[in-house]
Amino acid sequence: MDESVSKKAPEPNGKETDVKALAAQVVAGDRRALARAITLVESTRTDHREQAEQLTEQLLTHTGSAVRLGISGTPGVGKSTFIEAFGSYLTDQDLKVAVLAVDPSSQRSGGSILGDKTRMAELARNPNAFIRPSPAGRTLGGVARRTREAMLVVEAAGYDVVLVETVGVGQSETAVDNMVDLFLLLIAPGGGDELQGIKRGIMELADLVVVNKADGDLLAPAKRAAAEYKGALGLIRPRHPDWRPDVLLASSLRNEGMDAIWQIVGAYREALAGPDGIATRRARQATAWMWDEIREGLLAVLKDHAEVRAALAEYEDAVTRGEMTPEGAARRVLEIFRGEITQG
Amino acid sequence: MDESVSKKAPEPNGKETDVKALAAQVVAGDRRALARAITLVESTRTDHREQAEQLTEQLLTHTGSAVRLGISGTPGVGKSTFIEAFGSYLTDQDLKVAVLAVDPSSQRSGGSILGDKTRMAELARNPNAFIRPSPAGRTLGGVARRTREAMLVVEAAGYDVVLVETVGVGQSETAVDNMVDLFLLLIAPGGGDELQGIKRGIMELADLVVVNKADGDLLAPAKRAAAEYKGALGLIRPRHPDWRPDVLLASSLRNEGMDAIWQIVGAYREALAGPDGIATRRARQATAWMWDEIREGLLAVLKDHAEVRAALAEYEDAVTRGEMTPEGAARRVLEIFRGEITQG
Repeated sequence: MDESVSKKAPEPNGKETDVKALAAQVVAGDRRALARAITLVESTRTDHREQAEQLTEQLLTHTGSAVRLGISGTPGVGKSTFIEAFGSYLTDQDLKVAVLAVDPSSQRSGGSILGDKTRMAELARNPNAFIRPSPAGRTLGGVARRTREAMLVVEAAGYDVVLVETVGVGQSETAVDNMVDLFLLLIAPGGGDELQGIKRGIMELADLVVVNKADGDLLAPAKRAAAEYKGALGLIRPRHPDWRPDVLLASSLRNEGMDAIWQIVGAYREALAGPDGIATRRARQATAWMWDEIREGLLAVLKDHAEVRAALAEYEDAVTRGEMTPEGAARRVLEIFRGEITQG
Repeated sequence: MDESVSKKAPEPNGKETDVKALAAQVVAGDRRALARAITLVESTRTDHREQAEQLTEQLLTHTGSAVRLGISGTPGVGKSTFIEAFGSYLTDQDLKVAVLAVDPSSQRSGGSILGDKTRMAELARNPNAFIRPSPAGRTLGGVARRTREAMLVVEAAGYDVVLVETVGVGQSETAVDNMVDLFLLLIAPGGGDELQGIKRGIMELADLVVVNKADGDLLAPAKRAAAEYKGALGLIRPRHPDWRPDVLLASSLRNEGMDAIWQIVGAYREALAGPDGIATRRARQATAWMWDEIREGLLAVLKDHAEVRAALAEYEDAVTRGEMTPEGAARRVLEIFRGEITQG
């Protein structure tokens, strides 16, 4: 998989100067440079990772001005048609729109979301839109990191709105929620069992719920679904004191409701413009990313030690069988690791 | 705080033999030994931690037979009167009941829950009940760990049901959910805004919701609340394919509904008796505890290094101000740490 990725990646002749040039081209709005830059940040090759880090650091001052929207919904709610309609609405407002995705399953499934641009044919042809499939990756953390970096790149390239799509698989929603300003939960009409598809914890993430397919025969069920979700959201303490999540109706088919959604996004950004608003949320997100990377890196260091690896395999079994306490197993593992440190 | 805890703790003359003797007394059902054992596992003193680990390892084979119930509810729902009523119902069934708690705020607040046994006067006097306030602690992880170990101790002492209470502060519910077989969410009647108190993610944890105070004037509102929560739960994918969370009514004041709750607990244990049921849940919990301890310990090792600490302080600020990428900051921190390792 590294192979396939590295093939897409630029030649490994990357000197600091090349990265500088690439960064300048990205900021200048060069679309092909943008694609190359994102391929670079998506690469898992060590030399590319280093260049990617240099690139994002050089682009950093040009980032942060875009509206970051997370869009989630279980399969069948019409996510791609919604993004096509909403994205086209935004470009009609002379806004540049980038569509990214977080889908840890994309490696196995060969890209279960956004793998096929024809899925959003109109938006894909739109010069003010940029669509990027989910990066491949073994871990959600790895996939999310590359999407975060891609988000910085498209922001530096002057995109006004970044839509980060994710497929409804629980943790990936949390990962997306940790990189956006507003989390939009897309649902489909349908009563009873059909509604029972929202993963645990997702409803609480929603800053805005949109009932899609609110047209024709589905208009009435859509209104019922909206009422049900309004009720459910009413039971949950809002995540921001200044914002009560609302439920809107939309029809991607008829391009209806897009303006109302965009107006709510604007209202949200106004409501959270003050202290402890979006700025604070972004600062918290950045710190959380740093600590995620540190934790992930620390575990990698731990597992790098053969002695620790062997102990882990043995102790984990013992703990699962109830023959060893979790605390005792952890202490022993850490003692071996500490020993490694002092031994050097 | 270590001081105050160590005062409560037994004399630090603990040899392996003493721990062995204490373990034997606990298994024999000696109530004073039980109290001493829990004081030991709650102590933060290094020598006591070691003895506590020896103790829990020696008790391990005697644990696991109890029903582990988590009970959560926001202040005002009548948690303590419910536990008093439910606990007394259980002892009337000739079951031995232990009540533990997880409350990270107990250190600051001086024990906001279960700090005062008179809160459950009847149960506290009951020879078949054992009530223990939340251990004090700086971190939720530390508090949860000691409650987990206390749970093993009371199980070894022959208690049939362990009720782990927590105050409604989000993460503490998750910590409790990670140590129990069934998570019971207690709510109070009341319409509209009064209901909007459930912390994010809590509703998804509920294996069973109980509307308390379903008596007198509150019976009708309680029934309305039950219907609302039934609807909300219906929108959430059940955590177990074999179990759909139900909503029951109860009156702690009139001791009504306790038998129905206990019957549901029995039905839950039957439904989850098979593979991927409670046994698997407990095995997953144990492995998760081990990894939590390892992660916590790794971060402690990381922060033990002065050079790393200094870098962390500087980089975290830079990341928060958007002057440094989280990935770059994390890599630099890990490089310093790795350097420490090789330097030894």
